[in-house]
Amino acid sequence: MPKQVDHRGRRETIARALWRVVEQRGVAHLTMRVVAQEAGISLGQLQHYFASRAAMLSFAMDFASEQTSLRVDRGLERLGDRPHPRDVLRLTLAEMLPLHADARATSRMSAAYVLEALHDEAVHEQAHRGLVQGRALTEQLIRQAIADGHIDPDRDPATETNLLLALTGFTPLIELHVIEPGDALAAIDLHLDRLFNGHGRST
Amino acid sequence: MPKQVDHRGRRETIARALWRVVEQRGVAHLTMRVVAQEAGISLGQLQHYFASRAAMLSFAMDFASEQTSLRVDRGLERLGDRPHPRDVLRLTLAEMLPLHADARATSRMSAAYVLEALHDEAVHEQAHRGLVQGRALTEQLIRQAIADGHIDPDRDPATETNLLLALTGFTPLIELHVIEPGDALAAIDLHLDRLFNGHGRST
Repeated sequence: MPKQVDHRGRRETIARALWRVVEQRGVAHLTMRVVAQEAGISLGQLQHYFASRAAMLSFAMDFASEQTSLRVDRGLERLGDRPHPRDVLRLTLAEMLPLHADARATSRMSAAYVLEALHDEAVHEQAHRGLVQGRALTEQLIRQAIADGHIDPDRDPATETNLLLALTGFTPLIELHVIEPGDALAAIDLHLDRLFNGHGRST
Repeated sequence: MPKQVDHRGRRETIARALWRVVEQRGVAHLTMRVVAQEAGISLGQLQHYFASRAAMLSFAMDFASEQTSLRVDRGLERLGDRPHPRDVLRLTLAEMLPLHADARATSRMSAAYVLEALHDEAVHEQAHRGLVQGRALTEQLIRQAIADGHIDPDRDPATETNLLLALTGFTPLIELHVIEPGDALAAIDLHLDRLFNGHGRST
């Protein structure tokens, strides 16, 4: 099905152009005209793939989430067959922070999307759904780690999940060079060490 | 000097109009024309107070920081003469989260500002300076709390400061209704309890 592949490929090219606009010029410049220009296509061609700015944004956001998941999956493969839950959590958190070019693009896209969500119900609903799903997966992982004896059973899985997700708050602090990437990772490691305190570490 | 007071008052009115635009319509609509309209003045009058969009944004951001500090100061007054460092940290963190209308306005303004900073050096410099200063004050408070025996001396002040500041990551999770405000505060309390573990709590 070469035609479908091209179609998907073209949409991804557009999504990446959209990310570049957000990254280099800011959401204030995020119009269909500017994205078409950045992608090197005409406005008419862009409209063939996305009927509206909202539809384009929606795809770009889903694509950003997909890319983040792919990076996490590739990292998990490197961790071997039965990765330690501490390593899975560290990898997932690290890939949500702007620590390298790809992660920076998806992270900036997410930040822009949160702001859009404040005054756009469809964006709010989509972002909400994605985050609730991510939160549920994290809590499931922590519950399993407790069941498997990796985390003290006295810990409350819901609150520990919330604390871990809140650590994505390193994002603006890294972006604005207030906290060095290495220091953010050291703090995350310390937090994870305390969570898994005395209950083993894989590496 | 009634003339100066009016001048300042008018600038604050404009800053609040700017916040409302960010909050209700998004940064994509943040032009001088739209802000003038929202403030109920002409574009010419707005330009009398701010020569450029950048100058207007810069003032609005400083004003947002000032308002947050004022709210923290008012809260500190209620804590009495010698507030416990745990209560000071909790109050400061809580006022940075979008938990009530005023805090929501300044918090959304900050988020918009971080995105602007990514492609505007002057904004980057201003936001960086403000955050570095806030971080230094927090670390100073933690060092003092260690010196006063409120926190275990084995704790690393720099890393504990970084972890605390990262908890502002609850902001998008609260805005998108992924984590309830009460659950975010419960997680912050748990984190602070651990930081001050066995070293006293004022209330």
